[in-house]
Amino acid sequence: MSRFVFGVDIGGTTVKLGLFDIEGELIDKWEIPTRTEENGKNILPDIAKSIEEKISEKSLEKADIAGIGIGAPGPVDDNGFIHKAANLGWGEFSIKETLEKITGLKVMAGNDANVAALGEMWKGGAKGYKDVVMVTLGTGVGGGIIVNGKMLNGYSGAGGEIGHIHVNDDEDESCGCGNKGCLEQYSSATGITRMGKKVLASCDTPSPLRNEEVNAKTIFDAVKAGDEVASKIAEIYGRYLGGALASIACVVNPEVILLGGGVSKAGTVVIDYVRPYYEKNVFHGSRNTHFCLATLGNDAGIYGAAKLVLE
Amino acid sequence: MSRFVFGVDIGGTTVKLGLFDIEGELIDKWEIPTRTEENGKNILPDIAKSIEEKISEKSLEKADIAGIGIGAPGPVDDNGFIHKAANLGWGEFSIKETLEKITGLKVMAGNDANVAALGEMWKGGAKGYKDVVMVTLGTGVGGGIIVNGKMLNGYSGAGGEIGHIHVNDDEDESCGCGNKGCLEQYSSATGITRMGKKVLASCDTPSPLRNEEVNAKTIFDAVKAGDEVASKIAEIYGRYLGGALASIACVVNPEVILLGGGVSKAGTVVIDYVRPYYEKNVFHGSRNTHFCLATLGNDAGIYGAAKLVLE
Repeated sequence: MSRFVFGVDIGGTTVKLGLFDIEGELIDKWEIPTRTEENGKNILPDIAKSIEEKISEKSLEKADIAGIGIGAPGPVDDNGFIHKAANLGWGEFSIKETLEKITGLKVMAGNDANVAALGEMWKGGAKGYKDVVMVTLGTGVGGGIIVNGKMLNGYSGAGGEIGHIHVNDDEDESCGCGNKGCLEQYSSATGITRMGKKVLASCDTPSPLRNEEVNAKTIFDAVKAGDEVASKIAEIYGRYLGGALASIACVVNPEVILLGGGVSKAGTVVIDYVRPYYEKNVFHGSRNTHFCLATLGNDAGIYGAAKLVLE
Repeated sequence: MSRFVFGVDIGGTTVKLGLFDIEGELIDKWEIPTRTEENGKNILPDIAKSIEEKISEKSLEKADIAGIGIGAPGPVDDNGFIHKAANLGWGEFSIKETLEKITGLKVMAGNDANVAALGEMWKGGAKGYKDVVMVTLGTGVGGGIIVNGKMLNGYSGAGGEIGHIHVNDDEDESCGCGNKGCLEQYSSATGITRMGKKVLASCDTPSPLRNEEVNAKTIFDAVKAGDEVASKIAEIYGRYLGGALASIACVVNPEVILLGGGVSKAGTVVIDYVRPYYEKNVFHGSRNTHFCLATLGNDAGIYGAAKLVLE
């Protein structure tokens, strides 16, 4: 009988792996490098090898393993087929079928942000909820959407790409995706830093930010210390994110919105600047949505990946 | 064995009813008035009575009936519980349980716009698709979202309320929902008329619209005749709707977007003004979404309601 499951979260530089029991208890976790050279052809074989070694190290049998869940940084559809992952050098292919062939184990795959949302729903900040929007505020803005307990992957795996919701018609700079005025240009760690520098350059108001590196952390630290300039920057972050979340809620009507990623380490202040704009713009049927912080940090991906197999 | 199913679409003034075979062939359709007095307490009993009469008229047995599907104008969750329907005078209660008690038949219920989308997917313009966004351009802007073949109702039934996506910070007039700057203030039949009058008042450019009633039909007729002012009005409609649909697609990544409702009777011109704004703002993973017109007209609701039972 299956007693264990592997959860794998593929990032641009490292692959995180976790061994769980089927109740979701994390037994072991480790990392291997992501070898993106040669169109990332070694990534899945490396993962397979690492899992085989772990099975042997722990004296497990393959029959003990329910399967391997995988989160990957790209659009993955309901069939575990990835529609390109530029970061990894990957084109279009079935992650599920490829890794099943190598390992002989059942494989389930999803987009990393969607999978992280599933992890938070299973064991993290959204535990007990079934309709979840998770926003990961990191280098970009990632989104993971859970509808009635299931990941919303979309037709070609591009569901939950909320960082690319268009929020500003007057933007001159381009987003990484090629459009102009995407949410992540304002509310990601990078976007907050960018807006911070703009606000600082546009005024002479004294601020501790003038004497240190300007980034999402120092900006929210200054907000918490009562700095007026930092608060202006946080308003920009909150206005765009709150507005976009209001649009998202008109579409999916979630029970809870979860903020995660590096920026959210600043604490509930990241919610305080979002909620007023959310409540102002959202349809009344979604006005009482809860806001919480993610709690699993970098482990959300391996938890969610494991859960994918157990569904 | 069940061979038939009833589909019911509750509107503010009439209830549409259809008798279908389980392949989805419409055998009979008829209407009864919606009696909204006394908090709409007669609506479900009237429906039950009308269905009993039809069963008797057609010499059917209750055992022949798979059930009754219902679309209602308000937020209905996955359990068939309605969270208020102001139009009907209804508060919060289970449509499913209430009508099951009266009729002894299986009942399934959903929001009318979501149910209409299901109908279009089953037998209309979205036949063959599983990931659908349907926009109903009528007095308001309704939305129905189908994810992997299932209606997206949301936590409290307010999923797909896309008419209330906030699209304009500079609006002075209030939407029916109480907010300002909702999509339906620009892209519903009412909204198009409102913007039409504004554009006409703001310029002296000659237009056939100066000599006739200004409404969505006359505006799109003038667009098709090459009128410059009408085209300006259609641009406003298309800019807001295309932009909102781009945001929606970043969330749910549909395979097809379907335009229906009274405004869509103008034909593919209603798509022509939307698509450029959609393509400009949407994430590249959703850029190739198909646009189609709904084909079932006012029958989409009874078709979708019948399908609800057969799922």
